[in-house]
Amino acid sequence: MVSLNQTFDGPLLISAPGKVILFGEHAVVYKKTAVAASLGLRSYLYLENRNDDIIHLEFPDVDLNRKWKMSDLPHPLPYKAGHDDSHHPMDMPEDLKQHLLSLINGDDFENDSARERAALAFLYLYLCLVKPGESRGLNICVKSTLPVGAGLGSSASFAVVLSSALLIHFGHIMVPKQVVVEEKVQERSNEREETLAAVNRWAYKAEQVIHGNPSGVDNAVASYGGAKRYTKGEGFSSLQGFTSLRLLLTNTKVPRSTAVLVAGVGAKAKSFPLIMAPIMDSVQAISDECTHLFEKHARGEASKQEILERIEELFDLNHCLLMAMGVSHPSLEQVRTITSKHGMTTKLTGAGGGGCAVTIVRDVLNSKFVDTPQETIDNAVKELTASGFECYETSVGGPGVGVSLLEPEWNAATLCSATRSELEAVKEWRWM
Amino acid sequence: MVSLNQTFDGPLLISAPGKVILFGEHAVVYKKTAVAASLGLRSYLYLENRNDDIIHLEFPDVDLNRKWKMSDLPHPLPYKAGHDDSHHPMDMPEDLKQHLLSLINGDDFENDSARERAALAFLYLYLCLVKPGESRGLNICVKSTLPVGAGLGSSASFAVVLSSALLIHFGHIMVPKQVVVEEKVQERSNEREETLAAVNRWAYKAEQVIHGNPSGVDNAVASYGGAKRYTKGEGFSSLQGFTSLRLLLTNTKVPRSTAVLVAGVGAKAKSFPLIMAPIMDSVQAISDECTHLFEKHARGEASKQEILERIEELFDLNHCLLMAMGVSHPSLEQVRTITSKHGMTTKLTGAGGGGCAVTIVRDVLNSKFVDTPQETIDNAVKELTASGFECYETSVGGPGVGVSLLEPEWNAATLCSATRSELEAVKEWRWM
Repeated sequence: MVSLNQTFDGPLLISAPGKVILFGEHAVVYKKTAVAASLGLRSYLYLENRNDDIIHLEFPDVDLNRKWKMSDLPHPLPYKAGHDDSHHPMDMPEDLKQHLLSLINGDDFENDSARERAALAFLYLYLCLVKPGESRGLNICVKSTLPVGAGLGSSASFAVVLSSALLIHFGHIMVPKQVVVEEKVQERSNEREETLAAVNRWAYKAEQVIHGNPSGVDNAVASYGGAKRYTKGEGFSSLQGFTSLRLLLTNTKVPRSTAVLVAGVGAKAKSFPLIMAPIMDSVQAISDECTHLFEKHARGEASKQEILERIEELFDLNHCLLMAMGVSHPSLEQVRTITSKHGMTTKLTGAGGGGCAVTIVRDVLNSKFVDTPQETIDNAVKELTASGFECYETSVGGPGVGVSLLEPEWNAATLCSATRSELEAVKEWRWM
Repeated sequence: MVSLNQTFDGPLLISAPGKVILFGEHAVVYKKTAVAASLGLRSYLYLENRNDDIIHLEFPDVDLNRKWKMSDLPHPLPYKAGHDDSHHPMDMPEDLKQHLLSLINGDDFENDSARERAALAFLYLYLCLVKPGESRGLNICVKSTLPVGAGLGSSASFAVVLSSALLIHFGHIMVPKQVVVEEKVQERSNEREETLAAVNRWAYKAEQVIHGNPSGVDNAVASYGGAKRYTKGEGFSSLQGFTSLRLLLTNTKVPRSTAVLVAGVGAKAKSFPLIMAPIMDSVQAISDECTHLFEKHARGEASKQEILERIEELFDLNHCLLMAMGVSHPSLEQVRTITSKHGMTTKLTGAGGGGCAVTIVRDVLNSKFVDTPQETIDNAVKELTASGFECYETSVGGPGVGVSLLEPEWNAATLCSATRSELEAVKEWRWM
């Protein structure tokens, strides 16, 4: 068990993962269980003090670069450490929201844009968490290796790095005194559990500002990592024994409206209730099978190879049921055709109708008989890229939010211009 | 009502349809209901007396061209007309089978080939149905517009034309005295029902010789036409109100083994019982929805347009569930991609893994706003043909077995060399 013992005044580098829905998208609307897991693609936040009273927020992925004088901001909202932070209203008061929007908007901002909502979430959390009497300004830069707005939880990972950074910087929570090895990351002391609960709670508030009525599963996955089961009305729980899996993520870049897709499934469910209800039941059984599989793995009763083989079958089954719901798209079928030619299994993830697809990469104990050879992945990626898609070799089920204190030469500008490989080269994370 | 009043000694031209499974393939193994319908592609049989004692059977589609001297054949099996024909054993006695095989096989015959089985079925039915004391030989030619061995019931349509021809020729049943218009074809007198029941019963015996243990649905569809519901253990029933639908049939020509595909679904059902069971339930609901739809149509509560729109949705749903069962194939997905580009909906039919796909052609009251324009069909066919597939513009739900007496200039050789369009030009059928 790792205990928490450090507060920080110096610069902070914080990262938190995106998420993919492994199973149960759309079915979740019909009270079936979805399984979401953390994604190897992450958001990174760098925070440092300034010597003046300027708050400078940069988030180049949404074209956000804004400075505020602390004296121009509204009065901070009262904060009490520990569990008491729950007394904050989950919704931002309307008059405060209008005041903050007036500080954010200028000629170059559209209303209700991703950057407006990101800036609003930041200012709200800042006012809630700033230490009374604080006089120093801040440089904050957020950079993501996640495609934004692709259903991969980029806003939740932004919310989690933001809430962690402000909670740590203003001394509300502490960070682990040492680096936790990745395998042990889910074995948390009560102290760490409480810390993460605070991070998650404040991230949820930021998500509410950004999304209105989020389910809470995205920020939970970004905070805790691993995988979560989520059932509407019942909330979420951790998936025991979830093991990190290699994944090829493909962004078709085909834009789609989640609301339209959800409505389409709704129309089908209304038009063919007796046909659609068992399809939703089958999806529930898929999420349950995934859960049991990892529970067996945790008890040492299922090998990694068995898990991969069955997860591939579950991917295929769930994708076909999503097709039956009418939410696939020719681009997603093309990804399936290409990867299948290379012996890999793919399903759409999220709302469908374009968006992203996930492909299992077999990676078992470096077995050349079972593992997907790098050459196969490279060939598939080449073909997918040639079709206009964007590929990411990554993983699911890795750790949640982490803090790095080992990059003293970094500053906000370094982060803002960092490449994906430079960001992923940071290895010494203190997982929260 | 049409009554039966003619027996025939002269030449006969008989035709019977193939079948397509519209819904429920594979699920039928799990005691779910399948819906099969007659196909516009048919088998044609021409029969005429000879002046010698030679039985000459030609079936060029399976490379069968064989002559037997009547005196070389075993003694006929006793036949009593009417219901009594049911006293015949459904399985051919093994010693008779071996005797007949010795008459069939020569240097150019492989064991257990399609032509061996067709010849065996013919000889068995001939011995069961030949009139005692008959001395004249026969010329029989069978020609099909159906692709053979593609899961379209070619053997059942062969069995039905064979049993009808022999039953009529030897005076066991009579044919209608006039041509029945196609719309009235399902309104049968008791007399016609009994005649068709005899045709179907004897066709089933031929199917048993050819297939071992057939479900009986293929020969029932080939005998009665229209559409049938079939549930294992419960037998089959007619689908009330079924209306003839235009269809584009595509043969991918990808060979597959039905047994291997059925075993694959079985393995999945065993490996993921809780996921697969609701998928089968959903297929049951699809077959039921199709049944209700046509019942509504029969009551005047559903327009042809409504039927077509919902059948398209059911096609898509059932295909996706068959994909989930693992029985689609890249060639079938290619047919779906091409036809979908032209705004048409396709599902695989039969065992899958290649084989055939069916595409709905919208054909409603010559409405140029709703109907699929011929140009669209032509373009889709062009693209499908360029991909190496074989297309047939045809229909489902048409009449069953029929007799034509109006082509006096025909003979067995004419039929054997007839083209599909020459065969389809014969219009004056007396539907049985």
